[in-house]
Amino acid sequence: MARSDSGESVLERVVRILEAFTPDAPALGVGEVARRAGLPPATASRLVADLVAHGLLVRDDRRVRVGTRLWELASRASPTLSLRETAMPVLEDLHRVVGHHAQLGVLDGDEVLFVERLSADRAVINLTRIAARLPLHASSSGQVLLAFASTVLQERVLARPLGGFTRNTITDPAALRRVLAEIRERGVALCPGHIHLDATGVAVPVRRPDGQVVAAVSVVVPNDGEAARTVPALTEAARRIGSRLTH
Amino acid sequence: MARSDSGESVLERVVRILEAFTPDAPALGVGEVARRAGLPPATASRLVADLVAHGLLVRDDRRVRVGTRLWELASRASPTLSLRETAMPVLEDLHRVVGHHAQLGVLDGDEVLFVERLSADRAVINLTRIAARLPLHASSSGQVLLAFASTVLQERVLARPLGGFTRNTITDPAALRRVLAEIRERGVALCPGHIHLDATGVAVPVRRPDGQVVAAVSVVVPNDGEAARTVPALTEAARRIGSRLTH
Repeated sequence: MARSDSGESVLERVVRILEAFTPDAPALGVGEVARRAGLPPATASRLVADLVAHGLLVRDDRRVRVGTRLWELASRASPTLSLRETAMPVLEDLHRVVGHHAQLGVLDGDEVLFVERLSADRAVINLTRIAARLPLHASSSGQVLLAFASTVLQERVLARPLGGFTRNTITDPAALRRVLAEIRERGVALCPGHIHLDATGVAVPVRRPDGQVVAAVSVVVPNDGEAARTVPALTEAARRIGSRLTH
Repeated sequence: MARSDSGESVLERVVRILEAFTPDAPALGVGEVARRAGLPPATASRLVADLVAHGLLVRDDRRVRVGTRLWELASRASPTLSLRETAMPVLEDLHRVVGHHAQLGVLDGDEVLFVERLSADRAVINLTRIAARLPLHASSSGQVLLAFASTVLQERVLARPLGGFTRNTITDPAALRRVLAEIRERGVALCPGHIHLDATGVAVPVRRPDGQVVAAVSVVVPNDGEAARTVPALTEAARRIGSRLTH
């Protein structure tokens, strides 16, 4: 692939430009794109123009945004979207029964990536969004995915500093190790106040028919000691989603 | 941007590779990617390797798929996703009331692009999927978006051959012109059997607080003459979505 003087591929620079756009900064001036992507302004400007010409970015007044075309290319053949589509009717039922937030997360790298979230207007606080990430050790979905992940990944996570969100986040590797063993045994992760003191995350694994864990389905409910009541509905939802997965 | 001997930019080739993946062909061998993208096998192979290295494609056995990373980059800062997130609680309520399919479409190019769809397990047949497209003249969402689009776009669509899905699809430009005027007056499009003889699409415009139409919210219900009963629920849903849009 064509490389610049600095040895970077064009694709590398395109990825850095796309990474510049975040939920908090969905529209950026070209100068800001250059700064965030660490590219010379002229280079950024040329690449942005090319991305706009292909509809991957769109101009909006004097700023640029991620284009619908990029979303379409990324979504229409995406295994993520097909998991999400399979899970959606079940997730809706779960959301109706439990209220608050119902979400679906997958393991991506060393984090949980949330591919869907249904929220009620007056739901308890929840720090995740769709396409947002959380560390594996801190969230209920992450703990479920980590508990059933390879030992290589588990040891890598356990060897690193475990950052805390609240005083309830598990930051001690030995404690996390015990929690993961418990999750494997009981099939559920309960995280009262681990991400936000007012909320409890509850997650269970979604298994393909061959038994492999491919996702976590979770709810975020108030931290009032009643969260465990959601477990039967979660388990049933995970069973229904899993039974629909063919690959 | 770096160009190949044929004068194409790298980005152009990357887009053609991404376009090779569709809902019906989400996983492809590299040879098939090359064929669909119209690229020499060696070129396709090099670009696929670079896309895999960046997580935009992922290897799956001997084939490649669209990667979660591409979906994440495209989604997290996407205005499409933010419209979808805003609309979601309302769309869920609509789906609960109407059953069958509730969907949200936006104008993209000369087509309607569906950015969300909620379906019941036993819903009437529906040919759309998320991130799928339909022609503007043939679908209820498309007719709504066309009715409130620029006259330039309207004239362009009216000047072209209007393809038929069923014997009910409007393929006569003069008839379509009358239908668009009616939609502007009544604020609703009703398409009994236009896409599939057993289904009726009903769509209404979603307006931003400044009055601009930015999306269509629609339902797909049986073609049994009862479809117009869904109009009040649709109108209320569109009003609620519109009132939440800030830009």
